[in-house]
Amino acid sequence: VSTGSGGSVAAGGAATEAETAELGPASAPVLKPLAARLLSEAVQLVEHGGPGALSLREVQRRAGVSPAAAYRHFTDREALLLAVAQHCAGLLADHIAGALRAAPVPDGTQASARTRLLAGCRAYVDFATAHPGLYRAVFVSGEQLEELRSPSPLARGAAGDGGFNLLVCALDDVAAAAGADLGAWDPVAVWSCCHGLAMLRLDAALRGLPEETFEQARDSVLATITSAVSRG
Amino acid sequence: VSTGSGGSVAAGGAATEAETAELGPASAPVLKPLAARLLSEAVQLVEHGGPGALSLREVQRRAGVSPAAAYRHFTDREALLLAVAQHCAGLLADHIAGALRAAPVPDGTQASARTRLLAGCRAYVDFATAHPGLYRAVFVSGEQLEELRSPSPLARGAAGDGGFNLLVCALDDVAAAAGADLGAWDPVAVWSCCHGLAMLRLDAALRGLPEETFEQARDSVLATITSAVSRG
Repeated sequence: VSTGSGGSVAAGGAATEAETAELGPASAPVLKPLAARLLSEAVQLVEHGGPGALSLREVQRRAGVSPAAAYRHFTDREALLLAVAQHCAGLLADHIAGALRAAPVPDGTQASARTRLLAGCRAYVDFATAHPGLYRAVFVSGEQLEELRSPSPLARGAAGDGGFNLLVCALDDVAAAAGADLGAWDPVAVWSCCHGLAMLRLDAALRGLPEETFEQARDSVLATITSAVSRG
Repeated sequence: VSTGSGGSVAAGGAATEAETAELGPASAPVLKPLAARLLSEAVQLVEHGGPGALSLREVQRRAGVSPAAAYRHFTDREALLLAVAQHCAGLLADHIAGALRAAPVPDGTQASARTRLLAGCRAYVDFATAHPGLYRAVFVSGEQLEELRSPSPLARGAAGDGGFNLLVCALDDVAAAAGADLGAWDPVAVWSCCHGLAMLRLDAALRGLPEETFEQARDSVLATITSAVSRG
């Protein structure tokens, strides 16, 4: 039940909402109300403490259910963590999709295509820096490149497709507007650059930069990588 | 005592070697023999188990010294971990420096400058993927951008300068050969891309790629980012 409006970190909200999940877009996964509640509590723990903070017992306690009831939906911590990871991947996708919706409508020009790609990349990095716990959780899923291309239902978010595919589409538009072919590894170049930038900001050399300076760095780095892929 | 020949992970080797450290290059830090031995044991632990595997007690045991003797050099695990992190940064720098030494001599052309930059970046990624434990250790130092530009003596390695500065020099040569100015954040773009690519290989979406396919991805991604920074 990924209601997935931009910025929301809940995994379904109240049971009554969850019960209406079947009315959602065809791509949205349908979770039983209790599973949605457990997932929602788990996501909140991870938002504040990262994936290491996830405890099945604490999630049960917060959801006010017995271990036996929880067990019917998630047999162990690993199973719940995987659902959290996929849900967080869906939230990342939703954040990128929201930025693309807010960007200028594509008009076939290189300028508009590049502006949209840049907006998508900026949304990627901003999601990571604004929600470190959720972003780190994405990476415990162990999803491989093929799975990024064919994401699990939970990882698609409300956008209906995963974040990787959304950036690939934006990249395709840039290449098409330039009359160029997209390189096979160009999406990985963009994804690497966004991931590396986010990790340097969260854990490493860019952590101490004032927000404004980091935003300059972010925009400059993303301008470099997004213009690179469109020049072949 | 970073003897730092390419690929070596030892932190000084035998005490007799360590005792001759003062004869090394001016930039090489001088560690007391026992400190060098403790550091060497610590680096070996981290090489095999990552920074989480570092235990002060185990290092003391392996070095065959008393806690009191070890304490005179490293007051706690954090102090030892910092020295390990800096030493590993020095090994990364040495690996990049070795690749630059093996690359074609710079002749002022764009082709040679770009080949050298690419060789340095490839060495960065290869160090990370060949020595995950050492590479992860680099990032526990908490070094910020300013410290990458003015690395601590241990982090300089035998090369006499840190890995970041070595790549900046290679970037400068590319810009100079192209008659262009290096963008202020271009080094961060290259660093982000290398770091992101390495982390996707170690922990995430690229982990399952066969070695040959990963090498294609690596070369394609690095060609994209290194050509981007030289076109302004």
